[in-house]
Amino acid sequence: MELWQRIEEGDIRAAARLMRYADDGDPQAVEQMKRIYPLTGKARVIGVTGNPGAGKSTVVDKLISEYRKGERKVGVVAIDPTSPFSGGAILGDRIRMNRHYNDDKVFIRSLATRGHLGGLSKSTGEISLIMEAWGCDPVFVETVGVGQAEVDVVKLAQTSVVVMVPGMGDEIQAIKAGIMEIADIFVVNKADREGADRTIRDINAMLEMVHWQEGGWRPRVVKTVAFRDEGIDELVKVIEEHGHWLQQSGYQEVKNRRRVEAQFSDLLQDRVRERIEALLAGTEFQSWAEDLVQREKDPYTLLERVSKALLKDQP
Amino acid sequence: MELWQRIEEGDIRAAARLMRYADDGDPQAVEQMKRIYPLTGKARVIGVTGNPGAGKSTVVDKLISEYRKGERKVGVVAIDPTSPFSGGAILGDRIRMNRHYNDDKVFIRSLATRGHLGGLSKSTGEISLIMEAWGCDPVFVETVGVGQAEVDVVKLAQTSVVVMVPGMGDEIQAIKAGIMEIADIFVVNKADREGADRTIRDINAMLEMVHWQEGGWRPRVVKTVAFRDEGIDELVKVIEEHGHWLQQSGYQEVKNRRRVEAQFSDLLQDRVRERIEALLAGTEFQSWAEDLVQREKDPYTLLERVSKALLKDQP
Repeated sequence: MELWQRIEEGDIRAAARLMRYADDGDPQAVEQMKRIYPLTGKARVIGVTGNPGAGKSTVVDKLISEYRKGERKVGVVAIDPTSPFSGGAILGDRIRMNRHYNDDKVFIRSLATRGHLGGLSKSTGEISLIMEAWGCDPVFVETVGVGQAEVDVVKLAQTSVVVMVPGMGDEIQAIKAGIMEIADIFVVNKADREGADRTIRDINAMLEMVHWQEGGWRPRVVKTVAFRDEGIDELVKVIEEHGHWLQQSGYQEVKNRRRVEAQFSDLLQDRVRERIEALLAGTEFQSWAEDLVQREKDPYTLLERVSKALLKDQP
Repeated sequence: MELWQRIEEGDIRAAARLMRYADDGDPQAVEQMKRIYPLTGKARVIGVTGNPGAGKSTVVDKLISEYRKGERKVGVVAIDPTSPFSGGAILGDRIRMNRHYNDDKVFIRSLATRGHLGGLSKSTGEISLIMEAWGCDPVFVETVGVGQAEVDVVKLAQTSVVVMVPGMGDEIQAIKAGIMEIADIFVVNKADREGADRTIRDINAMLEMVHWQEGGWRPRVVKTVAFRDEGIDELVKVIEEHGHWLQQSGYQEVKNRRRVEAQFSDLLQDRVRERIEALLAGTEFQSWAEDLVQREKDPYTLLERVSKALLKDQP
């Protein structure tokens, strides 16, 4: 039986193997990915993002438990921008979500941003497709919200959950624009801490300033204390409401469209990046580089030449 | 007089204008950038990076003062990964470095990572070239060390300074590999805090584990309390020592080479990204996207077709 068939039948090792092939750029991957693609596109992809320390992993951990009650398979792609400085929370996350590792209907995969962020998006897209084909619904994509690039990954999601903690009032003021674009649901986690109500008020005040269209989705605010399981049922309810709204409003199609565009763009950029790397490693460029160092050539003139060698003329 | 000539003569407004042109993709920019390129390549580019809160801006602030004593012009490109979550420290940095704004031999430019990180690298590269052409030496490139992508920007630098704070002992263990690759100099800032000596010991212990080549550069550790100006003179001394070592060891050439390669690669990737965006916005792709959503096409087959339309065959 081919890999894609085994994945469709729910073989977790086959799914893990295809993820590895896709990551390694193994030529077998493409053929298998083509085959699983028709099996995808129906699962919900839920982005969960927020600052380090906000408790994203705990929230996701509890959401897994909640969704597992319904016998559905659940997938998690956890992205960690392994900083050479902060070290990265991968290990911690893994340990925390560990209790689901024995659940053979939960598929958790951590991705470190070792290389370029472009590559990260490609991997996230492919892993989420494989999880879907394997039967996961929903698939959670968990990212640390440290930069625009990570937020781009959220384009894959139909519902975006932003996890915050009390005491970010001033920050909220500073960040309105960015956060508005991506949040469908705000979670104020660790809501037993002082300042939770103030944070909720601040978020609501911020939402007040926007004119929400009739029939549009006004972002919702949910209070949780995730480690004690408080508010998680409410969060699931709101996530489901957002899902219904997407269906009824027709906005689901917009999200689906955005997802395929983002995924295709990631694949294409990855392909081009490979080509550029090969070109820069070639002997011809290596002699040009010396001329650049010596200022005997300039990179802009060279760019014109290399673009011509690399890219076809605009149609 | 042309823009590039005015920049060579030290006209700061001309320099600022070319930065704006370059950022906006104004066609005039390319011609002027070609002209200033031969004026560049001699200044030192010093990367300063570290976690939020480590005090990078204060360190840079004091370094500016120190280098300004010698009548040299100094440039700073401050990169801030404007997170929709953390808001970003731009404003704070600006205010802190404000006292240099009245110094017409200091050129500070903040860059927010609003768009793609690729674009960020291109801008950083071009701004540092313009600063050099205007006469800056050194040029500081300050980044928040939150991810690999930001660290990539450090490729532009000949000397990389990593700013840490006491109490990161455990983290250091977790992060050895990444940090080793980029740090020429470790600064333990806020060294009046408890745990400073422990942090220094940890860094040294980590350095002990590496076999440093004969005549190679073993990263140095400098203690500072930047806001009180303590240790800054020592830091300048070590930066200068690293500069001498680069010259004597011949490693300067390696760094120069790496810089032109990184800059060229950024320019090329930016060009390709533009082309891809145009392609994806085109009517043809828009109808393909619908087929992707419907699962009537798969992105991998499409990728082959689009690659052929976009990229020339491998030579």
